[in-house]
Amino acid sequence: MKKSSIIHHPSSITLNIPTKVGIFDSGAGGLTVVKSLMEHGLFDEIVYYGDTARVPYGTKDPATITRYALEALEFFKNFDIDLLVTACNSVSAHAIPELRANAGFPVYGVIEPGILALENAGLPHSSRILVLGTRATVGSGRYQRGIKELGFENLQALSPSLFVPLVEEGIFEGAILKSTLDYYFKEIPSPDAIILGCTHFPLIADAIRDYFPNRPLLIHSGEAIAQHLERNGCKPGITEETKLTIFASENPDALKQIAKKWL
Amino acid sequence: MKKSSIIHHPSSITLNIPTKVGIFDSGAGGLTVVKSLMEHGLFDEIVYYGDTARVPYGTKDPATITRYALEALEFFKNFDIDLLVTACNSVSAHAIPELRANAGFPVYGVIEPGILALENAGLPHSSRILVLGTRATVGSGRYQRGIKELGFENLQALSPSLFVPLVEEGIFEGAILKSTLDYYFKEIPSPDAIILGCTHFPLIADAIRDYFPNRPLLIHSGEAIAQHLERNGCKPGITEETKLTIFASENPDALKQIAKKWL
Repeated sequence: MKKSSIIHHPSSITLNIPTKVGIFDSGAGGLTVVKSLMEHGLFDEIVYYGDTARVPYGTKDPATITRYALEALEFFKNFDIDLLVTACNSVSAHAIPELRANAGFPVYGVIEPGILALENAGLPHSSRILVLGTRATVGSGRYQRGIKELGFENLQALSPSLFVPLVEEGIFEGAILKSTLDYYFKEIPSPDAIILGCTHFPLIADAIRDYFPNRPLLIHSGEAIAQHLERNGCKPGITEETKLTIFASENPDALKQIAKKWL
Repeated sequence: MKKSSIIHHPSSITLNIPTKVGIFDSGAGGLTVVKSLMEHGLFDEIVYYGDTARVPYGTKDPATITRYALEALEFFKNFDIDLLVTACNSVSAHAIPELRANAGFPVYGVIEPGILALENAGLPHSSRILVLGTRATVGSGRYQRGIKELGFENLQALSPSLFVPLVEEGIFEGAILKSTLDYYFKEIPSPDAIILGCTHFPLIADAIRDYFPNRPLLIHSGEAIAQHLERNGCKPGITEETKLTIFASENPDALKQIAKKWL
């Protein structure tokens, strides 16, 4: 994990604290990452772009996801951003090397930060870890490899594909959610920690945690990337309020409505 | 309903029976339409194109759906098709006029055929009709207007957004499906007929029918378009087997696997 290759620390920290961040997501889910960045008071300005015309990414192929991410990168080049965060785990799993090679500014995914958050949680290596993500994210094996490198061997990864549509339908409780949790989890031994490896999952985090009798530790991409950026020199912005500008490949108004509700 | 504007009957029927059809769908769902066409023995050759890199369409905007449909049309122009069927209800709801204006061959949607199938079922006008479709399809109001024009006033339209992901997850029975049906249907008076206005819904048709104590009549886009094409001069192909060629905007192999399973 070469942190120096991710963000290039300037010689004069004071003058070069990044203040404007681009957040890329396949749709609305990345707003959970925006929320964390705002709660940490990072950045004066956030430019959000959701590829709502092609959402979801998590069911798509790595080559398609990378192509879409590179197209989004061209969009962000029109803004004077200091760094780019790919809030979407599926993008973070597949497109980071290509994005970094073409960006001209630092690019952060959410997978490394999630793995580091697990490391920082200080759990014993015998702990049972459950990774939840889209088919694209779990299929990449990136969380699994990183977590094994930390020394955790008791590891399982799952793609509960119905979680995203449930959240998008606004279902955060009730019989469908209960039977869906049961469908995916009933054979799963109670984990000590769960990686919520998709931006939608924090919205049903309580239900996921409560399903397991030991109430496992949850690792949330938004919180993980916010802490990771702080560790890498990002500081609270100088302005009181963060300026958030939202763009979308279709229907930005719908995205703005969701942002109002979630943030 | 001007049938003459849909297909241009040639003077010599024998020589001009369409034998090669293009089927356009947002993904795999349109294979339920392919199945119906094959069961009716229509066409010698079927060229199927699923826009799997951008699926689903049903949650997207009309302008986006129309743009994608026109791009697909360019794809079909590379093949010498006699007519094009848009299996996807969301495309049929929004893009038919634009497609017809640009095609150079007849273009059929599945909504008109579905409405005609309801008319041909001969139900009394007091019957209760339930239309199920994606947000894009129901939002267009096309089924609703057509059904009201037939004289049915007792009409309700619903977007059970979880049905598509359930089918894609291969869930055709069990607790999740039961609680999902309950979620959408528990306040709905038992209908006399249900329009299955999405290519995925036929795969859970039995569960939908069985939910209602009176076991309503179901209208299926694939069956409706097959009958409609027969009424409009399409005849069984001269070859014994239909040649099916499958294309996709990503991962055609996955689509071919689904085709093997469904057909």
